[in-house]
Amino acid sequence: MSHRPAEFRAFFAYYNAIMNKESGNLSKADKELIIVATSIVNKCPYCVVAHSALHRIYSKNPALADQVMVNWKMADLSARELAMLEFALAVCRAENITEEHFQKLEDQGFDQEDAWDIGIISAFFAMSNRIAHFTDMHPNPEFFTMGRVPREKEKTKSS
Amino acid sequence: MSHRPAEFRAFFAYYNAIMNKESGNLSKADKELIIVATSIVNKCPYCVVAHSALHRIYSKNPALADQVMVNWKMADLSARELAMLEFALAVCRAENITEEHFQKLEDQGFDQEDAWDIGIISAFFAMSNRIAHFTDMHPNPEFFTMGRVPREKEKTKSS
Amino acid sequence: MSHRPAEFRAFFAYYNAIMNKESGNLSKADKELIIVATSIVNKCPYCVVAHSALHRIYSKNPALADQVMVNWKMADLSARELAMLEFALAVCRAENITEEHFQKLEDQGFDQEDAWDIGIISAFFAMSNRIAHFTDMHPNPEFFTMGRVPREKEKTKSS
Amino acid sequence: MSHRPAEFRAFFAYYNAIMNKESGNLSKADKELIIVATSIVNKCPYCVVAHSALHRIYSKNPALADQVMVNWKMADLSARELAMLEFALAVCRAENITEEHFQKLEDQGFDQEDAWDIGIISAFFAMSNRIAHFTDMHPNPEFFTMGRVPREKEKTKSS
Amino acid sequence: MSHRPAEFRAFFAYYNAIMNKESGNLSKADKELIIVATSIVNKCPYCVVAHSALHRIYSKNPALADQVMVNWKMADLSARELAMLEFALAVCRAENITEEHFQKLEDQGFDQEDAWDIGIISAFFAMSNRIAHFTDMHPNPEFFTMGRVPREKEKTKSS
Amino acid sequence: MSHRPAEFRAFFAYYNAIMNKESGNLSKADKELIIVATSIVNKCPYCVVAHSALHRIYSKNPALADQVMVNWKMADLSARELAMLEFALAVCRAENITEEHFQKLEDQGFDQEDAWDIGIISAFFAMSNRIAHFTDMHPNPEFFTMGRVPREKEKTKSS
Repeated sequence: MSHRPAEFRAFFAYYNAIMNKESGNLSKADKELIIVATSIVNKCPYCVVAHSALHRIYSKNPALADQVMVNWKMADLSARELAMLEFALAVCRAENITEEHFQKLEDQGFDQEDAWDIGIISAFFAMSNRIAHFTDMHPNPEFFTMGRVPREKEKTKSS
Repeated sequence: MSHRPAEFRAFFAYYNAIMNKESGNLSKADKELIIVATSIVNKCPYCVVAHSALHRIYSKNPALADQVMVNWKMADLSARELAMLEFALAVCRAENITEEHFQKLEDQGFDQEDAWDIGIISAFFAMSNRIAHFTDMHPNPEFFTMGRVPREKEKTKSS
Repeated sequence: MSHRPAEFRAFFAYYNAIMNKESGNLSKADKELIIVATSIVNKCPYCVVAHSALHRIYSKNPALADQVMVNWKMADLSARELAMLEFALAVCRAENITEEHFQKLEDQGFDQEDAWDIGIISAFFAMSNRIAHFTDMHPNPEFFTMGRVPREKEKTKSS
Repeated sequence: MSHRPAEFRAFFAYYNAIMNKESGNLSKADKELIIVATSIVNKCPYCVVAHSALHRIYSKNPALADQVMVNWKMADLSARELAMLEFALAVCRAENITEEHFQKLEDQGFDQEDAWDIGIISAFFAMSNRIAHFTDMHPNPEFFTMGRVPREKEKTKSS
Repeated sequence: MSHRPAEFRAFFAYYNAIMNKESGNLSKADKELIIVATSIVNKCPYCVVAHSALHRIYSKNPALADQVMVNWKMADLSARELAMLEFALAVCRAENITEEHFQKLEDQGFDQEDAWDIGIISAFFAMSNRIAHFTDMHPNPEFFTMGRVPREKEKTKSS
Repeated sequence: MSHRPAEFRAFFAYYNAIMNKESGNLSKADKELIIVATSIVNKCPYCVVAHSALHRIYSKNPALADQVMVNWKMADLSARELAMLEFALAVCRAENITEEHFQKLEDQGFDQEDAWDIGIISAFFAMSNRIAHFTDMHPNPEFFTMGRVPREKEKTKSS
């Protein structure tokens, strides 16, 4: 991407507007979990591996991202996380979004702004996953292990 | 989108960097055809209808976009357009992109920069289609007829 | 088909028995909408384009058939039309038809005879679409624009 | 169907024009095998069971129809029968039919008229299967055993 | 398999432990019906044909296995058999098994041990079907007719 | 499983006959890679996580199993590993196995006994994955990190 500086800058400006905004109820770990769950649908090695590492770091949970990679419905998710991923995956799969979708989010304490945040992250990575595919991006080797061995032993227990 | 001015600006800045760049071998009609073909896969009413209208206007062909909507492989496409849509749809479907994909483009006179342009348009609209879905965007009524009866020149300006 | 006069006559005799019967609650526009919705599933260019034109003419609605082509569940359909297309598409997809399917039709004012009419049109075009495929039928160019620019201006507003 | 005599007559007139024509290279057993192979795709109990019985009777082969029901590609088919079913199933699945499809038929001794016959039988039963679905037709009990126990013992060997 | 005696013995020892255990509420016919229904999903000619024959013999019903082969949801199944096949097919398709699945079984009088029996038969034949595929096993010709012509005429009536 | 000692013993006797046989050209790491690749298709958290850990330990490669989890066709596999997984996945998906499948294995130095070994491991885990699903097995927390941090730093480089 670096050989096209204008596109490169525009991509990251948009990325920053979405991922680094201060407002809203999504934690950094929430955002990374959305990226892991949707990038696995699009079979994007770079995004799954890099954002799994970030999720492990932000959440201090060394197992959840891997669980979501294999079978998100059987992962140790809270009801709130489950609703968040359901919405993100509906957007990811280009399903028709109905009032029922928003209602399920609201039932878990998400407001309309959060719904937008979940949807836009899912949509943005629908794009990023596809760019990574045709540019053949590979994850750095260190991403595979990052965040797996927490310093404090009590962090190893998955909830 | 307008209630989030920072994201709105970033989206359109990126859109402009991709769609309005001067260089490359893709015509305006080519770009719109890519958007029609990929947006139909994502079942996005707004994008299909608006960009079909733009394709009709740029190409002066009142039928091709509709043909692509129903069954792109049976549409009256040139070999060059067929190769372009094959690549765009492989990116759209998040397929693994191989050397063979790039070779097929090269065989039709596309270079590496064109391959990037086709891929990035397909990827960008993978995002846009999904945003349109969760924001429930509807096409303006005039898009359905625009460019079908090419008499009124004033209709040509795209939003 | 014309080189087989016996089959040609039998096909159209059956077509007439189904499409031009006087009785029942389906309007001409209803019938055409069923054909558009099911022919898009079968990716039949001829049938989608020709019967979209007929729907525009009978319904005086220049946009609805196009909406149904892209994403029937997000089209501006009445509850009655939605139920009609749900049944037609279940038949089109060779799904098991249950009492629940008939109940949903009844809830929208359709009787058993109407259910038969919807089902038989969907089934007949399952056949016609396939014949058009292997005989490589192409729509006449005028079908693409027919019924798009109504003479009276009040017809343009889609609900 | 009998409560709609006009449709009933038109259906059978068309059926006769297709199934009972004298000309062409398809045997009665060939035609029944096409119906079994395509009706299994559409999951139509009546057509599969009734036409399996007819195939057993015409072919004097008590096993082939059952083999085709489970997995047609692994059935004991001749190269000619395999090509015939490949074409029939492409039509059944509403795939785009190309020159390559016709070439494969020609390689096995089928001419253009035979291609039409295979295609039209597949298309006609795409319709019939769907009618049987929404009218909930059930096969007569005797169809399940018909043609299974040939009188001459040498018929039991499947080729 | 016979050229690997250790594996051969282990396979049949496990088969016997599952299929020939005395306890539980599944009849021999129930077990065979599970095998027919799941083997058809895996398109295994040997297992479908051999176990259909066994089902006909154990159940004295010459039609039910064939009905299940074509379209299990439209077969003449009891509510108990329907629940049993629903669970078996969920396991066969590697779906996530939830409390709801077990509840539906319990509603039809199955206990936890029966649920295990249904699941393990479905899982065992997920393996057997695949072994039959890569070893290209073919059913014996007599399996196709076995159990089809009952000696007592009153058995022909399917319920 | 432990509450059914006879089945438990039979399962592990068969497992041992397959996984712990001395002969053949598959390494321990090869066998674990087959299990990872096929268990991800069946979405089995226990098998993917436990056998990924074993693969990391046997292969001393901390990244390959994760790559295979996300997108096996884009993983850093040797041509030999690619052919091995292609065959294993064809068996896993219950595809028809043809001479071409065996030829591709032979081209990479696998003999008929190896083909059997690959096939039987894939088939055995088609069963195991499904048992894990309905018994709701969960991977031990330590499996997630096992084999990720090699003592010698030079092992971190993925080939």
